Amino acid sequence: METRKLLLLSSSTVWGSGYLDWAEPAIRAALGHARHVAFVPFAAHDHDRYATTARQRFAAMGYALHSLHDTPASLADADALFVGGGNTFRLVAALHHRALIEPIRAFVASGRAFVGSSAGSIVACPTMQTTKDMPAVEPPSFRALDLVPFQISPHFQDPDPSSRHMGETQEQRIGHYHEDNERVVVGLREGSALSVMGDAVTLLGTHTARVFHKAQPPRELPPGRIEHAL
Amino acid sequence: METRKLLLLSSSTVWGSGYLDWAEPAIRAALGHARHVAFVPFAAHDHDRYATTARQRFAAMGYALHSLHDTPASLADADALFVGGGNTFRLVAALHHRALIEPIRAFVASGRAFVGSSAGSIVACPTMQTTKDMPAVEPPSFRALDLVPFQISPHFQDPDPSSRHMGETQEQRIGHYHEDNERVVVGLREGSALSVMGDAVTLLGTHTARVFHKAQPPRELPPGRIEHAL
Repeated sequence: METRKLLLLSSSTVWGSGYLDWAEPAIRAALGHARHVAFVPFAAHDHDRYATTARQRFAAMGYALHSLHDTPASLADADALFVGGGNTFRLVAALHHRALIEPIRAFVASGRAFVGSSAGSIVACPTMQTTKDMPAVEPPSFRALDLVPFQISPHFQDPDPSSRHMGETQEQRIGHYHEDNERVVVGLREGSALSVMGDAVTLLGTHTARVFHKAQPPRELPPGRIEHAL
Repeated sequence: METRKLLLLSSSTVWGSGYLDWAEPAIRAALGHARHVAFVPFAAHDHDRYATTARQRFAAMGYALHSLHDTPASLADADALFVGGGNTFRLVAALHHRALIEPIRAFVASGRAFVGSSAGSIVACPTMQTTKDMPAVEPPSFRALDLVPFQISPHFQDPDPSSRHMGETQEQRIGHYHEDNERVVVGLREGSALSVMGDAVTLLGTHTARVFHKAQPPRELPPGRIEHAL
Protein backbone atom coordinates (compact mmCIF):
# COMPACT_ATOMS: atom_id res chain seq x y z
CA MET A 1 0.00 0.00 0.00
CA GLU A 2 1.80 3.11 -1.20
CA THR A 3 -0.41 5.43 0.78
CA ARG A 4 -0.29 3.76 4.17
CA LYS A 5 0.61 5.85 7.20
CA LEU A 6 1.04 3.68 10.27
CA LEU A 7 2.48 4.27 13.73
CA LEU A 8 2.90 0.98 15.60
CA LEU A 9 3.83 1.40 19.27
CA SER A 10 5.30 -1.43 21.31
CA SER A 11 3.44 -0.28 24.42
CA SER A 12 1.15 2.49 25.64
CA THR A 13 3.30 3.24 28.64
CA VAL A 14 6.92 3.01 29.66
CA TRP A 15 8.05 2.68 33.25
CA GLY A 16 7.61 5.87 35.28
CA SER A 17 5.34 7.86 32.94
CA GLY A 18 1.64 8.12 32.14
CA TYR A 19 -0.59 6.70 29.42
CA LEU A 20 0.90 7.41 25.97
CA ASP A 21 3.21 10.09 27.40
CA TRP A 22 6.34 8.64 25.85
CA ALA A 23 4.64 8.37 22.46
CA GLU A 24 2.99 11.80 22.29
CA PRO A 25 5.50 13.39 19.87
CA ALA A 26 5.28 10.40 17.51
CA ILE A 27 1.47 10.37 17.70
CA ARG A 28 1.31 14.10 16.90
CA ALA A 29 3.64 13.59 13.95
CA ALA A 30 1.65 10.62 12.67
CA LEU A 31 -1.73 12.34 12.97
CA GLY A 32 -0.57 15.52 11.21
CA HIS A 33 -3.60 17.70 10.48
CA ALA A 34 -6.09 15.06 11.57
CA ARG A 35 -8.59 16.22 14.20
CA HIS A 36 -11.14 13.43 14.44
CA VAL A 37 -9.81 10.11 15.73
CA ALA A 38 -11.84 6.88 15.71
CA PHE A 39 -10.95 4.54 18.59
CA VAL A 40 -11.00 0.75 18.66
CA PRO A 41 -11.50 -0.26 22.34
CA PHE A 42 -12.14 -3.96 21.77
CA ALA A 43 -8.88 -5.30 23.27
CA ALA A 44 -10.28 -4.29 26.68
CA HIS A 45 -13.22 -5.89 28.44
CA ASP A 46 -14.77 -2.59 29.60
CA HIS A 47 -15.22 -0.54 26.42
CA ASP A 48 -16.76 2.49 28.12
CA ARG A 49 -13.97 2.87 30.61
CA TYR A 50 -11.28 2.36 27.99
CA ALA A 51 -12.90 4.87 25.65
CA THR A 52 -13.05 7.46 28.44
CA THR A 53 -9.34 7.01 29.16
CA ALA A 54 -8.42 7.34 25.50
CA ARG A 55 -10.80 10.26 24.88
CA GLN A 56 -9.28 12.24 27.74
CA ARG A 57 -5.73 11.51 26.67
CA PHE A 58 -6.36 12.49 23.05
CA ALA A 59 -8.30 15.59 24.14
CA ALA A 60 -5.21 16.66 26.06
CA MET A 61 -3.36 16.52 22.73
CA GLY A 62 -6.12 18.49 20.98
CA TYR A 63 -7.90 15.64 19.18
CA ALA A 64 -11.58 14.65 19.29
CA LEU A 65 -11.89 10.89 19.80
CA HIS A 66 -14.97 8.74 19.23
CA SER A 67 -15.09 5.07 20.09
CA LEU A 68 -16.37 2.53 17.59
CA HIS A 69 -18.19 0.62 20.36
CA ASP A 70 -20.78 3.38 20.88
CA THR A 71 -20.35 5.38 17.69
CA PRO A 72 -19.82 2.82 14.91
CA ALA A 73 -20.28 5.49 12.22
CA SER A 74 -17.29 7.40 13.54
CA LEU A 75 -14.93 5.45 11.29
CA ALA A 76 -16.37 7.14 8.19
CA ASP A 77 -16.08 10.59 9.75
CA ALA A 78 -12.60 10.14 11.20
CA ASP A 79 -9.35 11.20 9.67
CA ALA A 80 -7.26 8.91 11.88
CA LEU A 81 -7.70 5.61 13.75
CA PHE A 82 -6.27 4.49 17.10
CA VAL A 83 -6.34 0.82 18.09
CA GLY A 84 -5.65 0.44 21.80
CA GLY A 85 -3.80 -2.43 23.46
CA GLY A 86 -5.13 -5.16 25.72
CA ASN A 87 -5.87 -8.78 24.92
CA THR A 88 -5.04 -9.59 21.30
CA PHE A 89 -7.42 -12.58 21.10
CA ARG A 90 -10.31 -10.45 22.31
CA LEU A 91 -9.40 -7.69 19.83
CA VAL A 92 -9.13 -10.00 16.83
CA ALA A 93 -12.39 -11.74 17.74
CA ALA A 94 -14.14 -8.34 17.79
CA LEU A 95 -12.62 -7.21 14.48
CA HIS A 96 -14.07 -10.33 12.85
CA HIS A 97 -17.42 -10.42 14.64
CA ARG A 98 -18.02 -6.70 14.00
CA ALA A 99 -16.90 -7.03 10.37
CA LEU A 100 -14.23 -4.35 10.80
CA ILE A 101 -11.34 -5.98 8.91
CA GLU A 102 -12.18 -4.70 5.42
CA PRO A 103 -13.44 -1.24 6.53
CA ILE A 104 -10.19 -0.62 8.43
CA ARG A 105 -8.12 -1.83 5.48
CA ALA A 106 -10.02 0.57 3.22
CA PHE A 107 -9.54 3.36 5.77
CA VAL A 108 -5.77 2.86 5.69
CA ALA A 109 -5.73 2.52 1.90
CA SER A 110 -7.40 5.93 1.69
CA GLY A 111 -4.26 7.46 3.23
CA ARG A 112 -5.65 8.15 6.70
CA ALA A 113 -3.37 7.54 9.68
CA PHE A 114 -3.48 4.33 11.74
CA VAL A 115 -1.97 4.28 15.23
CA GLY A 116 -1.77 1.00 17.13
CA SER A 117 -0.33 0.11 20.51
CA SER A 118 0.73 -3.34 21.71
CA ALA A 119 -2.17 -5.63 20.68
CA GLY A 120 -3.21 -2.77 18.38
CA SER A 121 0.16 -3.04 16.65
CA ILE A 122 -0.02 -6.82 16.35
CA VAL A 123 -3.33 -6.59 14.51
CA ALA A 124 -1.69 -4.43 11.82
CA CYS A 125 0.29 -7.59 10.92
CA PRO A 126 -0.89 -10.44 8.66
CA THR A 127 -1.92 -12.54 11.67
CA MET A 128 -2.09 -12.29 15.46
CA GLN A 129 0.28 -15.23 15.84
CA THR A 130 3.07 -13.32 17.64
CA THR A 131 1.03 -12.31 20.67
CA LYS A 132 2.02 -13.33 24.21
CA ASP A 133 -1.51 -12.88 25.56
CA MET A 134 -3.69 -15.60 27.01
CA PRO A 135 -6.39 -16.83 24.64
CA ALA A 136 -9.18 -15.44 26.84
CA VAL A 137 -11.55 -15.31 23.86
CA GLU A 138 -11.65 -17.65 20.85
CA PRO A 139 -11.56 -15.66 17.60
CA PRO A 140 -13.06 -17.15 14.44
CA SER A 141 -9.66 -16.77 12.76
CA PHE A 142 -6.11 -15.68 13.63
CA ARG A 143 -6.04 -13.47 10.50
CA ALA A 144 -5.55 -9.80 11.25
CA LEU A 145 -5.53 -6.55 9.23
CA ASP A 146 -2.48 -7.41 7.07
CA LEU A 147 -1.35 -3.79 6.71
CA VAL A 148 2.36 -4.73 6.80
CA PRO A 149 4.06 -7.90 5.52
CA PHE A 150 5.89 -8.75 8.76
CA GLN A 151 4.93 -9.69 12.32
CA ILE A 152 5.53 -7.59 15.44
CA SER A 153 6.32 -9.06 18.86
CA PRO A 154 5.71 -6.09 21.20
CA HIS A 155 6.90 -5.60 24.80
CA PHE A 156 10.01 -7.47 23.63
CA GLN A 157 11.89 -8.63 26.69
CA ASP A 158 15.49 -9.81 26.76
CA PRO A 159 16.19 -12.95 28.80
CA ASP A 160 17.24 -12.42 32.39
CA PRO A 161 20.61 -14.20 32.68
CA SER A 162 20.10 -14.70 36.42
CA SER A 163 16.71 -16.39 35.99
CA ARG A 164 16.15 -19.94 37.16
CA HIS A 165 12.75 -20.07 35.51
CA MET A 166 12.49 -22.83 32.88
CA GLY A 167 9.55 -21.34 30.98
CA GLU A 168 10.32 -20.08 27.51
CA THR A 169 11.75 -16.66 26.76
CA GLN A 170 10.11 -14.41 24.17
CA GLU A 171 12.91 -15.31 21.77
CA GLN A 172 12.23 -19.04 22.26
CA ARG A 173 8.52 -18.45 21.63
CA ILE A 174 9.36 -16.66 18.38
CA GLY A 175 11.50 -19.70 17.53
CA HIS A 176 8.37 -21.85 17.94
CA TYR A 177 6.50 -19.48 15.63
CA HIS A 178 9.22 -19.93 13.01
CA GLU A 179 9.08 -23.72 13.22
CA ASP A 180 5.64 -23.47 11.63
CA ASN A 181 5.64 -20.06 9.90
CA GLU A 182 7.79 -18.00 7.56
CA ARG A 183 7.28 -14.30 8.23
CA VAL A 184 9.89 -11.94 9.63
CA VAL A 185 9.25 -11.04 13.28
CA VAL A 186 10.25 -7.66 14.72
CA GLY A 187 10.86 -7.82 18.47
CA LEU A 188 9.92 -4.29 19.51
CA ARG A 189 11.10 -3.17 22.95
CA GLU A 190 9.01 -0.92 25.19
CA GLY A 191 9.64 2.71 24.27
CA SER A 192 10.05 1.77 20.60
CA ALA A 193 7.70 2.15 17.65
CA LEU A 194 7.65 1.54 13.93
CA SER A 195 6.62 4.31 11.57
CA VAL A 196 5.43 2.91 8.24
CA MET A 197 5.00 5.49 5.48
CA GLY A 198 4.27 3.73 2.23
CA ASP A 199 7.16 1.29 1.88
CA ALA A 200 9.48 3.13 4.28
CA VAL A 201 9.75 1.55 7.74
CA THR A 202 11.51 3.56 10.45
CA LEU A 203 12.36 2.34 13.94
CA LEU A 204 11.61 5.14 16.43
CA GLY A 205 12.96 5.49 19.96
CA THR A 206 16.36 4.91 21.46
CA HIS A 207 16.42 1.09 21.59
CA THR A 208 17.50 -1.36 18.93
CA ALA A 209 14.91 -3.82 17.63
CA ARG A 210 15.60 -7.57 17.56
CA VAL A 211 14.63 -8.93 14.16
CA PHE A 212 14.08 -12.63 13.51
CA HIS A 213 14.25 -14.27 10.10
CA LYS A 214 13.38 -17.94 9.99
CA ALA A 215 16.43 -20.20 10.40
CA GLN A 216 18.82 -17.27 10.74
CA PRO A 217 20.48 -15.75 13.81
CA PRO A 218 18.53 -12.74 15.14
CA ARG A 219 19.83 -9.26 14.28
CA GLU A 220 19.80 -6.08 16.34
CA LEU A 221 18.79 -3.10 14.18
CA PRO A 222 19.45 0.46 15.35
CA PRO A 223 16.83 3.23 15.17
CA GLY A 224 16.30 4.61 11.67
CA ARG A 225 15.18 3.13 8.37
CA ILE A 226 14.96 -0.66 8.55
CA GLU A 227 12.82 -1.83 5.61
CA HIS A 228 15.94 -3.23 3.92
CA ALA A 229 16.29 -5.71 6.79
CA LEU A 230 12.68 -6.92 6.91
CA MET B 1 -14.75 -39.39 36.38
CA GLU B 2 -14.40 -41.58 39.46
CA THR B 3 -11.68 -43.68 37.91
CA ARG B 4 -9.38 -40.99 36.64
CA LYS B 5 -5.70 -41.13 37.54
CA LEU B 6 -3.88 -38.02 36.40
CA LEU B 7 -0.48 -36.54 37.16
CA LEU B 8 -0.22 -32.97 35.87
CA LEU B 9 3.29 -31.50 36.04
CA SER B 10 3.93 -27.78 35.83
CA SER B 11 7.14 -28.35 33.90
CA SER B 12 9.37 -31.14 32.62
CA THR B 13 12.49 -29.66 34.17
CA VAL B 14 13.42 -27.49 37.09
CA TRP B 15 16.54 -25.38 37.20
CA GLY B 16 19.75 -27.39 37.57
CA SER B 17 18.45 -30.89 36.79
CA GLY B 18 17.71 -33.02 33.73
CA TYR B 19 14.57 -33.87 31.81
CA LEU B 20 11.84 -35.13 34.20
CA ASP B 21 14.38 -35.75 36.96
CA TRP B 22 12.46 -33.79 39.59
CA ALA B 23 9.24 -35.61 38.70
CA GLU B 24 10.54 -39.19 38.56
CA PRO B 25 9.16 -40.29 41.96
CA ALA B 26 5.73 -38.86 41.15
CA ILE B 27 5.73 -40.43 37.68
CA ARG B 28 6.65 -43.84 39.12
CA ALA B 29 3.88 -43.52 41.68
CA ALA B 30 1.35 -42.48 39.04
CA LEU B 31 2.25 -45.26 36.61
CA GLY B 32 2.14 -48.00 39.25
CA HIS B 33 2.30 -51.38 37.51
CA ALA B 34 2.04 -49.91 34.02
CA ARG B 35 4.81 -50.95 31.65
CA HIS B 36 3.69 -49.71 28.22
CA VAL B 37 3.43 -45.93 27.88
CA ALA B 38 1.92 -44.20 24.84
CA PHE B 39 3.50 -40.80 24.11
CA VAL B 40 1.89 -37.71 22.61
CA PRO B 41 4.73 -35.72 20.96
CA PHE B 42 2.58 -33.20 19.11
CA ALA B 43 3.45 -30.12 21.18
CA ALA B 44 6.90 -30.25 19.54
CA HIS B 45 7.66 -29.58 15.91
CA ASP B 46 10.10 -32.50 15.52
CA HIS B 47 8.13 -35.56 16.61
CA ASP B 48 10.93 -38.06 15.98
CA ARG B 49 13.44 -36.20 18.09
CA TYR B 50 10.95 -35.60 20.90
CA ALA B 51 9.90 -39.25 20.92
CA THR B 52 13.54 -40.35 21.13
CA THR B 53 14.13 -38.09 24.13
CA ALA B 54 11.01 -39.34 25.91
CA ARG B 55 11.65 -43.00 25.01
CA GLN B 56 15.16 -42.86 26.49
CA ARG B 57 14.00 -41.11 29.64
CA PHE B 58 11.17 -43.57 30.25
CA ALA B 59 13.45 -46.52 29.43
CA ALA B 60 15.75 -45.30 32.20
CA MET B 61 12.77 -45.65 34.54
CA GLY B 62 11.97 -49.13 33.21
CA TYR B 63 9.03 -48.29 30.93
CA ALA B 64 8.55 -49.05 27.23
CA LEU B 65 7.35 -45.93 25.40
CA HIS B 66 5.76 -45.76 21.94
CA SER B 67 4.93 -42.49 20.26
CA LEU B 68 1.51 -41.93 18.70
CA HIS B 69 3.08 -40.12 15.72
CA ASP B 70 4.67 -43.29 14.33
CA THR B 71 2.70 -45.96 16.21
CA PRO B 72 -0.90 -44.71 16.33
CA ALA B 73 -2.13 -48.10 17.51
CA SER B 74 0.00 -47.84 20.64
CA LEU B 75 -2.80 -46.08 22.52
CA ALA B 76 -4.89 -49.26 22.56
CA ASP B 77 -1.97 -51.35 23.78
CA ALA B 78 -0.70 -48.92 26.39
CA ASP B 79 -1.51 -48.92 30.08
CA ALA B 80 -0.45 -45.29 30.58
CA LEU B 81 -0.23 -42.09 28.52
CA PHE B 82 2.33 -39.28 28.64
CA VAL B 83 1.59 -35.95 26.95
CA GLY B 84 4.78 -33.93 26.58
CA GLY B 85 5.10 -30.16 26.80
CA GLY B 86 5.86 -27.64 24.07
CA ASN B 87 3.51 -25.33 22.19
CA THR B 88 -0.07 -25.70 23.44
CA PHE B 89 -1.64 -24.38 20.21
CA ARG B 90 0.26 -26.94 18.16
CA LEU B 91 -0.70 -29.71 20.58
CA VAL B 92 -4.41 -28.85 20.62
CA ALA B 93 -4.47 -28.52 16.82
CA ALA B 94 -2.99 -32.03 16.53
CA LEU B 95 -5.41 -33.54 19.08
CA HIS B 96 -8.30 -32.27 16.95
CA HIS B 97 -6.85 -33.00 13.51
CA ARG B 98 -5.82 -36.53 14.53
CA ALA B 99 -9.19 -37.14 16.22
CA LEU B 100 -7.53 -37.98 19.54
CA ILE B 101 -9.83 -36.10 21.95
CA GLU B 102 -12.42 -38.85 22.44
CA PRO B 103 -9.96 -41.79 22.38
CA ILE B 104 -7.86 -40.15 25.11
CA ARG B 105 -10.95 -39.37 27.18
CA ALA B 106 -12.00 -43.02 26.87
CA PHE B 107 -8.46 -44.11 27.80
CA VAL B 108 -8.61 -42.08 31.01
CA ALA B 109 -12.16 -43.22 31.77
CA SER B 110 -10.92 -46.81 31.61
CA GLY B 111 -8.72 -46.10 34.67
CA ARG B 112 -5.38 -45.96 32.90
CA ALA B 113 -2.89 -43.31 34.05
CA PHE B 114 -2.47 -39.96 32.27
CA VAL B 115 0.71 -37.93 32.83
CA GLY B 116 0.99 -34.46 31.32
CA SER B 117 3.67 -31.80 31.54
CA SER B 118 3.26 -28.06 30.92
CA ALA B 119 1.24 -27.89 27.66
CA GLY B 120 0.39 -31.54 28.33
CA SER B 121 -1.15 -30.51 31.66
CA ILE B 122 -3.09 -27.62 30.12
CA VAL B 123 -4.76 -29.97 27.64
CA ALA B 124 -6.17 -32.01 30.53
CA CYS B 125 -8.29 -28.92 31.30
CA PRO B 126 -11.61 -27.98 29.68
CA THR B 127 -9.88 -25.58 27.27
CA MET B 128 -6.37 -24.42 26.38
CA GLN B 129 -7.23 -20.84 27.31
CA THR B 130 -4.69 -20.49 30.13
CA THR B 131 -1.60 -21.05 28.00
CA LYS B 132 1.16 -18.44 27.70
CA ASP B 133 2.43 -19.84 24.39
CA MET B 134 2.47 -18.03 21.08
CA PRO B 135 -0.31 -19.13 18.72
CA ALA B 136 2.17 -20.64 16.26
CA VAL B 137 -0.52 -22.93 14.85
CA GLU B 138 -4.26 -22.22 14.54
CA PRO B 139 -6.29 -25.04 16.11
CA PRO B 140 -9.85 -25.68 14.91
CA SER B 141 -11.05 -25.14 18.49
CA PHE B 142 -9.66 -24.13 21.89
CA ARG B 143 -11.49 -27.08 23.48
CA ALA B 144 -9.18 -29.57 25.16
CA LEU B 145 -9.57 -32.95 26.87
CA ASP B 146 -11.76 -31.76 29.76
CA LEU B 147 -10.46 -34.33 32.23
CA VAL B 148 -10.66 -31.91 35.18
CA PRO B 149 -13.14 -29.07 35.80
CA PHE B 150 -10.53 -26.33 36.39
CA GLN B 151 -7.79 -24.63 34.37
CA ILE B 152 -4.04 -24.89 35.00
CA SER B 153 -1.59 -22.05 34.38
CA PRO B 154 1.78 -23.84 34.45
CA HIS B 155 5.26 -22.36 34.91
CA PHE B 156 3.51 -19.92 37.24
CA GLN B 157 5.82 -16.99 37.80
CA ASP B 158 5.49 -14.41 40.57
CA PRO B 159 5.96 -10.78 39.54
CA ASP B 160 9.47 -9.38 39.87
CA PRO B 161 9.05 -6.35 42.16
CA SER B 162 12.17 -4.75 40.68
CA SER B 163 10.93 -5.03 37.09
CA ARG B 164 10.38 -1.91 34.98
CA HIS B 165 8.72 -3.94 32.25
CA MET B 166 5.15 -2.81 31.54
CA GLY B 167 3.98 -6.03 29.89
CA GLU B 168 1.46 -8.05 31.85
CA THR B 169 2.35 -10.49 34.60
CA GLN B 170 0.96 -14.01 34.58
CA GLU B 171 -1.51 -12.96 37.28
CA GLN B 172 -2.73 -10.05 35.14
CA ARG B 173 -3.17 -12.39 32.17
CA ILE B 174 -5.25 -14.72 34.34
CA GLY B 175 -7.28 -11.64 35.28
CA HIS B 176 -7.98 -11.10 31.56
CA TYR B 177 -9.08 -14.73 31.31
CA HIS B 178 -11.52 -14.16 34.17
CA GLU B 179 -13.00 -11.07 32.55
CA ASP B 180 -14.44 -13.39 29.90
CA ASN B 181 -14.49 -16.81 31.60
CA GLU B 182 -15.62 -18.44 34.84
CA ARG B 183 -13.40 -21.40 35.64
CA VAL B 184 -11.01 -21.65 38.56
CA VAL B 185 -7.36 -21.28 37.51
CA VAL B 186 -4.55 -23.04 39.37
CA GLY B 187 -1.22 -21.22 39.01
CA LEU B 188 1.23 -24.10 39.28
CA ARG B 189 4.83 -23.18 40.01
CA GLU B 190 7.75 -25.08 38.49
CA GLY B 191 8.55 -28.11 40.64
CA SER B 192 4.87 -28.57 41.47
CA ALA B 193 2.31 -31.02 40.16
CA LEU B 194 -1.30 -31.96 40.71
CA SER B 195 -2.23 -35.57 41.37
CA VAL B 196 -5.88 -36.23 40.52
CA MET B 197 -7.24 -39.58 41.73
CA GLY B 198 -10.96 -39.69 41.13
CA ASP B 199 -12.23 -36.58 42.88
CA ALA B 200 -9.18 -36.15 45.12
CA VAL B 201 -6.77 -33.42 44.00
CA THR B 202 -3.38 -33.25 45.72
CA LEU B 203 -0.76 -30.54 45.24
CA LEU B 204 2.66 -32.21 45.08
CA GLY B 205 6.04 -30.56 45.64
CA THR B 206 7.26 -28.02 48.13
CA HIS B 207 5.68 -24.84 46.70
CA THR B 208 2.26 -23.38 47.33
CA ALA B 209 -0.07 -23.01 44.36
CA ARG B 210 -1.75 -19.69 43.58
CA VAL B 211 -5.45 -20.30 42.96
CA PHE B 212 -7.67 -17.78 41.20
CA HIS B 213 -11.45 -17.67 41.48
CA LYS B 214 -13.20 -15.10 39.34
CA ALA B 215 -13.72 -11.78 41.12
CA GLN B 216 -12.03 -12.96 44.31
CA PRO B 217 -8.55 -12.32 45.69
CA PRO B 218 -6.11 -15.11 44.78
CA ARG B 219 -5.30 -17.69 47.45
CA GLU B 220 -2.06 -19.52 48.18
CA LEU B 221 -2.70 -23.21 48.88
CA PRO B 222 -0.07 -25.37 50.59
CA PRO B 223 0.89 -28.84 49.32
CA GLY B 224 -1.66 -31.53 50.15
CA ARG B 225 -5.31 -32.07 49.32
CA ILE B 226 -6.84 -29.02 47.63
CA GLU B 227 -10.04 -30.15 45.94
CA HIS B 228 -12.08 -28.29 48.59
CA ALA B 229 -10.60 -25.02 47.33
CA LEU B 230 -11.15 -25.57 43.58
